[in-house]
Amino acid sequence: TNAVGMAIAERTLAAHFNRPGHEIVDHYTYVFLGDGCLMEGISHEACSLAGTLGLGKLIFIYDDNGISIDGEVEGWFTDDTPKRFEAYGWHVVPKVDGHDPEAIKAALEEARSVTDKPSIICAQTIIGFGSPNKAGKEECHGAPLGEDEIELARKELGWSYPPFEIPKEIYEAWDARDKGAQAEAAWQEKFAAYRAEYPELAAEFERRMADELVEGWADKADAFIRSVAEKKENIATRKASQNAIEGLAPFTDFLGGSADLAGSNLTIWSGAKPIRKDNPDGNYINYGVREFGMSAIMNGIALHGGFVSYGGTFLIFSDYARNALRMAALMKLRNIEVFTHDSIGLGEDGPTHQPVEQVPSLRLIPNMSVWRPCDAVATAVAWKMAVLRKDGPTSLVLSRQGLPHQERSDEQIALIERGGYVLKDCDGKPDVILIATGSEVALAMEAAAAVTDKKVRVVSMPSTDVFEKQDAEYRESVLPSDVTARVAVEAAATGFWYKYVGTQGAVIGIDRFGES
Amino acid sequence: TNAVGMAIAERTLAAHFNRPGHEIVDHYTYVFLGDGCLMEGISHEACSLAGTLGLGKLIFIYDDNGISIDGEVEGWFTDDTPKRFEAYGWHVVPKVDGHDPEAIKAALEEARSVTDKPSIICAQTIIGFGSPNKAGKEECHGAPLGEDEIELARKELGWSYPPFEIPKEIYEAWDARDKGAQAEAAWQEKFAAYRAEYPELAAEFERRMADELVEGWADKADAFIRSVAEKKENIATRKASQNAIEGLAPFTDFLGGSADLAGSNLTIWSGAKPIRKDNPDGNYINYGVREFGMSAIMNGIALHGGFVSYGGTFLIFSDYARNALRMAALMKLRNIEVFTHDSIGLGEDGPTHQPVEQVPSLRLIPNMSVWRPCDAVATAVAWKMAVLRKDGPTSLVLSRQGLPHQERSDEQIALIERGGYVLKDCDGKPDVILIATGSEVALAMEAAAAVTDKKVRVVSMPSTDVFEKQDAEYRESVLPSDVTARVAVEAAATGFWYKYVGTQGAVIGIDRFGES
Repeated sequence: TNAVGMAIAERTLAAHFNRPGHEIVDHYTYVFLGDGCLMEGISHEACSLAGTLGLGKLIFIYDDNGISIDGEVEGWFTDDTPKRFEAYGWHVVPKVDGHDPEAIKAALEEARSVTDKPSIICAQTIIGFGSPNKAGKEECHGAPLGEDEIELARKELGWSYPPFEIPKEIYEAWDARDKGAQAEAAWQEKFAAYRAEYPELAAEFERRMADELVEGWADKADAFIRSVAEKKENIATRKASQNAIEGLAPFTDFLGGSADLAGSNLTIWSGAKPIRKDNPDGNYINYGVREFGMSAIMNGIALHGGFVSYGGTFLIFSDYARNALRMAALMKLRNIEVFTHDSIGLGEDGPTHQPVEQVPSLRLIPNMSVWRPCDAVATAVAWKMAVLRKDGPTSLVLSRQGLPHQERSDEQIALIERGGYVLKDCDGKPDVILIATGSEVALAMEAAAAVTDKKVRVVSMPSTDVFEKQDAEYRESVLPSDVTARVAVEAAATGFWYKYVGTQGAVIGIDRFGES
Repeated sequence: TNAVGMAIAERTLAAHFNRPGHEIVDHYTYVFLGDGCLMEGISHEACSLAGTLGLGKLIFIYDDNGISIDGEVEGWFTDDTPKRFEAYGWHVVPKVDGHDPEAIKAALEEARSVTDKPSIICAQTIIGFGSPNKAGKEECHGAPLGEDEIELARKELGWSYPPFEIPKEIYEAWDARDKGAQAEAAWQEKFAAYRAEYPELAAEFERRMADELVEGWADKADAFIRSVAEKKENIATRKASQNAIEGLAPFTDFLGGSADLAGSNLTIWSGAKPIRKDNPDGNYINYGVREFGMSAIMNGIALHGGFVSYGGTFLIFSDYARNALRMAALMKLRNIEVFTHDSIGLGEDGPTHQPVEQVPSLRLIPNMSVWRPCDAVATAVAWKMAVLRKDGPTSLVLSRQGLPHQERSDEQIALIERGGYVLKDCDGKPDVILIATGSEVALAMEAAAAVTDKKVRVVSMPSTDVFEKQDAEYRESVLPSDVTARVAVEAAATGFWYKYVGTQGAVIGIDRFGES
């Protein structure tokens, strides 16, 4: 699925940057996959979309050996895979002998000759080829052959060299370093010609492929944040997010998208151009109802480079995409997830659509940054931080319902970036600290205003992971350790917050399913 | 996907209970689905397996209206769905006019006549049919037509009745209560005849459909637990789990299975018989590499009734299945998930396969019971509790690596069921309490043995959710509130444990990805 993202990135960059006679973006994306990959649901999401988009330079080589870890797949996997891929609008090269180099070469040439459809080469192979007793059996899927069988396989294959010794002529035939260096030099020459003719485009291309934002990006984002603060709007943070996309898009290399629901998660901006089969030069992908596929494709786009990729869906559906979010975190990819309808506050859709455990659960993924902003200003700051973060994904957790603007000093606006800050303070040491995120910040502010006999501090904590990265002195200044009377408020499962409030404090949240 | 589970349950029960002339289990499973359903990856997993198993009484009616929330699907969904389902080995009834009752009736009859394949009826429809201005448009997908347009649609359709008034003749034509009562009476008569001829089978059928275990099940399970305790084995808890399945299977209505990997997650027992297209009377499903599909199919089996359903995969892949786990919890279904290879202790497969956040993340799902037992005895108890739990799912979190047997008194063995208990105590009030789960219990016991100058208590906490349901007195007896020096040890993300150790205590875990 990553590969579909790479192929989309290639095609879109080519459409944007290439000029007649200057094909500076021009590569194939090859994928090796097996029976297990084709059983997984995500293969459907990715391959269906790849067919619809007509990704002609995407080529799959399917290692069709009829074996998965449980044995011969005919008991649990009898798809007619060529037919399935025809149904997706792919070019299918069926029944290729996977042990015949000439047949594979011919199949690859055929696949490359079809430019308006992705191709799948069905390579029929025998697992453990050459092993007289284990070839074609699941025993050689996840375990070594064993010494005796290795000896027999060597005889069968006529391989007389000792382990790890590669004969000189084979080594040389496979040594592609010269060929690679030539190809690179040829491309450099091509690019030099391109730069001579289109210096601005060439500079933009180099900047984007180096994963750099336009010069002065942060200043422009700050100017946008100031303009939002001046407006003092009382709007849903999903709407504030759309405003942020609109505000940042003129100077950000967005490749946006949504898994359907674009009108609800508000991820389209005025300059959005959908990418279609016949219109690759766009900046927005209608991913369809494919949440897992979307996030994994976004990982592929990030791995390829050239874009700031984001995708939207309802927060509850982050559960579908969870493994792709984890892989983004593990691979340290910038992948911005716009998760709206973030609590039981979403209303009428009922418990299947009402998130409870999703926010704390996202916070558990190592290297995932989670923001749950409380108003339009904090949403703009969260977007800035998400775009600036090059080494990991960000989940923007946004409300369906309108949220009131919070008044802040310039200093406080600057502190939002630290993940947690004092939004309302009292004179001297607080008797109690209220900690809140997102839609519950306004509730905490109201509660604090209603308390007259105690000194109350309100801490807005849009991003706990960012707050935890601040120095100890700052953290202590926000949450002094000698104030143990603390209450955390978040419309989500409560467990996470005991780290902040301790056994003396209280957490107000929801540990059961929604019931509306 | 639930429906595939229902159809499997129906076919397997029929094969097991029906006798010539006595078709007491004999029903179709009908599914209505739309474009969005067919885009989701899980549709591939479920429909591919349904085709392989030849579920002839499963009938889909596909509402093919070409619209999803983002608009006309041709920009993001161009599958040839009939061809796709032919590739899965389904019977396809293409191009049915979805607004023509006769055509639908004929299609249903055709579908029912094909008994060795599931069927899909492709019903072409117009969304918002009858609305002169919005028919065929996405505007009527998630929003009401509006008063004016409703008025126009009423005219177009010739519908002159006021809102919520149903004309008598239509009401009567659709009133199926008499027909239903007759069908029920006919079945009861049939079942009485069956009972007369096969009293034992009839009693077993009634017990199973009432979701009851065999009489004395808990005593039998306890006898098995005692036998495990006597063996004092030092084995991996995944192996102990297989022993538990083997020990419980003779008196438990298991319908087991695994998403491939059966040889690793050890879910097959000596009496396991795989369910195949031509062999429906089995008790084990090779789900293939389809983790999400498996868990959702298990939900369908539980909704249908007649089985104690379990399924196995690696813990890390629980991320794929997460929404099905949530739905099991929301629908209060018994669904036993065997999650093995439960920590970075699994070794060589690397960070993509090493769980870190999965255990705390499962604990966040409301009504999900999570057990992480420390040895073979605790594993047997966890299995007992999972089978006895009728109103929700259980995740059994099991080690790949061998774990030492822990010595316990009979009283301690009985306390395992309470989710947390004192495994090793000291004289008088402890200076420090160590809390551990699973593979870390043995570490905590070793650490306690190494400390000579402090009074150390070790609490084994296999299930925090079960422990939290105990009365306050018991919880206080295990974790006295005046002992604040506490250390929790678990090879997983740490955040969860602050609830138990407070801000004074320490948590030993792992908040980054594995690196082996």
